[in-house]
Amino acid sequence: NRPMSNVNEIVVNYIAAWNEPDPKRRREIVARTWTDGGSYVDAHRKGVGHDAIDTMIATARKLFPRYRIRLISKIETHNGNLRFSWAAGGTEQAPLYLGGTDYGLLAADGRLQSVIGFVDASPVPVPA
Amino acid sequence: NRPMSNVNEIVVNYIAAWNEPDPKRRREIVARTWTDGGSYVDAHRKGVGHDAIDTMIATARKLFPRYRIRLISKIETHNGNLRFSWAAGGTEQAPLYLGGTDYGLLAADGRLQSVIGFVDASPVPVPA
Repeated sequence: NRPMSNVNEIVVNYIAAWNEPDPKRRREIVARTWTDGGSYVDAHRKGVGHDAIDTMIATARKLFPRYRIRLISKIETHNGNLRFSWAAGGTEQAPLYLGGTDYGLLAADGRLQSVIGFVDASPVPVPA
Repeated sequence: NRPMSNVNEIVVNYIAAWNEPDPKRRREIVARTWTDGGSYVDAHRKGVGHDAIDTMIATARKLFPRYRIRLISKIETHNGNLRFSWAAGGTEQAPLYLGGTDYGLLAADGRLQSVIGFVDASPVPVPA
């Protein structure tokens, strides 16, 4: 079991990575947050390793400009597993409301080994 | 990606395993539902392999007699990952309301490789 303060810090860094516009700073946050072979996957995007995760976030940020992710739940952890929910939007700058729950596995060094995201709130799909 | 019907069936069997009072039938359902080295873990209990999972469920059933688990959410799946929420109780026979969300990883054969449970609803803790 890991110190709770460290888990909080990891989640704060994780949120910060998605919100960071500066490529160099974002890449640094990603490396602090995920293990070298760490991964993120949800229904729409996937990245394995720091470079791929960073590229994935950059692509998502282009898709959702002005949306900033914020934590909207307690952080839960047991046996190295992690759960928290986030939201983005619902603001004047970013009017649609997006949300999800991320479930993570913590590595021995406290960083994220994997994150699996599920969608809790999304806009109505736009017909193609 | 696996046929949706199979994922539904796995979740139905998973719920049935927790609710099955007959040891022989429960052990069979567990073997149909989890891979040989499959696992379940939440904040309170853990089992790895069919025997340990079956014993874990038997112990939980003794702790919560008359409580039956039911599905209370849609079943979501992407990239072999699975999410659904369950509840138990809130009935005359089992008045307290228990609930949680389970995250699963599906193996290539469609069975569960691992399930990680988080608590969404629990009774007020009883002072020791």
